[in-house]
Amino acid sequence: MSDPHNMMLECVNLALAGKGYTGTNPVVGAMVVKNGEILGRGFHKSFGGAHAEIEAINNCSQEINGADLYVTLEPCSHYGKTPPCVETIVKSGISRVFIGVVDPNPLNAGNGINYLLNNGIEVYVGFAEQACAEIIEDFAKYILKGQPFYSLKIAQSLDGKIATYTGASKWITDETSRQYGHYFRSISDGILVGKGTVDADNPMLSSRFMGIMRYPYKIILDSSLSISEGSAVFEEKPERCIIFVSNSAIGKNKNKADNLMSKGVDIVPVNSDEYGLNLHDISSVLIGKNILNVLVEGGRKIYASFINNKLADKCYFFTSGKIIGEEGVDSIGKLGIDNIEESVKLEELTVQKLKNDFLFNGKINDYTEHILKLTEELRNRCSQG
Amino acid sequence: MSDPHNMMLECVNLALAGKGYTGTNPVVGAMVVKNGEILGRGFHKSFGGAHAEIEAINNCSQEINGADLYVTLEPCSHYGKTPPCVETIVKSGISRVFIGVVDPNPLNAGNGINYLLNNGIEVYVGFAEQACAEIIEDFAKYILKGQPFYSLKIAQSLDGKIATYTGASKWITDETSRQYGHYFRSISDGILVGKGTVDADNPMLSSRFMGIMRYPYKIILDSSLSISEGSAVFEEKPERCIIFVSNSAIGKNKNKADNLMSKGVDIVPVNSDEYGLNLHDISSVLIGKNILNVLVEGGRKIYASFINNKLADKCYFFTSGKIIGEEGVDSIGKLGIDNIEESVKLEELTVQKLKNDFLFNGKINDYTEHILKLTEELRNRCSQG
Repeated sequence: MSDPHNMMLECVNLALAGKGYTGTNPVVGAMVVKNGEILGRGFHKSFGGAHAEIEAINNCSQEINGADLYVTLEPCSHYGKTPPCVETIVKSGISRVFIGVVDPNPLNAGNGINYLLNNGIEVYVGFAEQACAEIIEDFAKYILKGQPFYSLKIAQSLDGKIATYTGASKWITDETSRQYGHYFRSISDGILVGKGTVDADNPMLSSRFMGIMRYPYKIILDSSLSISEGSAVFEEKPERCIIFVSNSAIGKNKNKADNLMSKGVDIVPVNSDEYGLNLHDISSVLIGKNILNVLVEGGRKIYASFINNKLADKCYFFTSGKIIGEEGVDSIGKLGIDNIEESVKLEELTVQKLKNDFLFNGKINDYTEHILKLTEELRNRCSQG
Repeated sequence: MSDPHNMMLECVNLALAGKGYTGTNPVVGAMVVKNGEILGRGFHKSFGGAHAEIEAINNCSQEINGADLYVTLEPCSHYGKTPPCVETIVKSGISRVFIGVVDPNPLNAGNGINYLLNNGIEVYVGFAEQACAEIIEDFAKYILKGQPFYSLKIAQSLDGKIATYTGASKWITDETSRQYGHYFRSISDGILVGKGTVDADNPMLSSRFMGIMRYPYKIILDSSLSISEGSAVFEEKPERCIIFVSNSAIGKNKNKADNLMSKGVDIVPVNSDEYGLNLHDISSVLIGKNILNVLVEGGRKIYASFINNKLADKCYFFTSGKIIGEEGVDSIGKLGIDNIEESVKLEELTVQKLKNDFLFNGKINDYTEHILKLTEELRNRCSQG
């Protein structure tokens, strides 16, 4: 038998090809294997599209009777946008199923495994669990909290500044870091900035990575709808723009709102709180639009709001070897921290040297634990190998 | 023949054992090698003490006639605190000398090589040059500028803060980082802080590394001599304390000055300039006291003064995975930088993961270039191997 751990890691790589395309669905990768030979590969390609297992089965040109199926996530047993995968698996003649982790979705969460077992299929659970859980941490947050998964992306100097006191920020980090930034955009459903960042940088908020243009949702927080109609975000795909404003802003800016909406821009009024526009309300709206992965690109007050609201899940700090000094603009706004114990701690923090800069990648919230716990609980319910 | 490059790297390691003990002398390592066997090892152990070559020759218990000498720095040809090494080398019977880099000291700078060549010794120059130059960058600055070599040591959060707005800084970085900090102290001739840091942290400013106590000079910048006589810096080895004050401070604090001086504390008045006490004057005083390597430990205004005066040579940024936010105290004070192009750039910047924190190590000034250029110029003057 081929090593299931390595087989599963190959499925994880397959799954990642779907990042940025699956909305509130999880990314999943699967392979059909017989006598050590991989007969078919599949991944979940788009929200509502065929599941990875079905893709892998359909990808096989040879007879798969008696074959093994490897899949990063427990196959579904319920009717969603597609019929239950477990039925197709049983009918396919596959005799053993190797599952990375249990599905955290309570509609499934063990039911898929039970169905397979009850239909005479050997089921083994828990391979490359950490990797299989990691790739669906966004989905786990959605299941557990009903909220989008927010990653903060910050480009700063070594002393934590995102601009000089004059507002100059081009370029604190180099071209390689900015390319990485576009990669992060390409695997996101939406890119969120405050109106100040639109004013300061006039970004397109599109993704240009490896020559491929992508248009994640452009999400702008602008309480008073004071954004300029000539902003670059409206140049391409204005229908991918969502502007969150305060409840009174549309009434006060009737003409601008009409102009923008006539281009297809979505203007959504939400409540305000001590930190500005209410991020929980915004989160609900985004989930309603099937936007799961949101890359938050500043400015400092926006970063602080997400942290203060306990909504920031992950941080990418692109850090250059430049020093700007005290007068510069801070990377993160006010957090009201008195003592070091209260500071925000990034967990599983890693650093990676890019061309000239360094990329820190750390978690504020961890949702993999829930998936790993579920997986551990069900491991013994399965076939004994 | 053994690989001279690797032999030289072993000499570099030997040389490093002298770091922190040689004052304004360079660290040097040497080995005597015959038929591939290392017969003797030596390094320069203390300011004014025997040079590494002599240590290595004296370390041999076997006959060294016809042996090779490896030494990181060109042997000296002039009378300093010790007689010229080249004479001893010629008399020793050594037949070939392999030199890492040429001595940047104009009193020597090729004269050592010439003496050896003129006395019938084969001389080869330029092995592991980068490493051999790197370990004496402090000495090169002293030779080129007559100033101490200043390394800034900063313990900061990921967003560039060294304390919360309340002044709390314990502990931004962890125990492992602090141990590293003590290592850096242990290889320094002096530790420099502003009076504000003494007030805030009340440090001992001693070095406790691997169970060994060391007392580099404790250098305090305190314009108005307002330091408390009960400060921890005076508890042990007050005679290792140097307080720099403004010209009028002693007259205005006669009693305190007398008390401190009676304990052995050195109080040195210097001129002031726009950044505070004149750091060039301070530099001259330190060199006069044979203090070459100075570790600057803050606070933020002191760091900024050294940068603004172009005296900061190297930076160690211990960076933790904590976020403190805008209200926190900045790591580096005001630098007057308007545009990103004007920012201070750290060259050859590396990062190292410690237990929980990350250590950035980068150069502001590079003095190795001068040594490498000299070495390149003299390479062809030597024996052809």
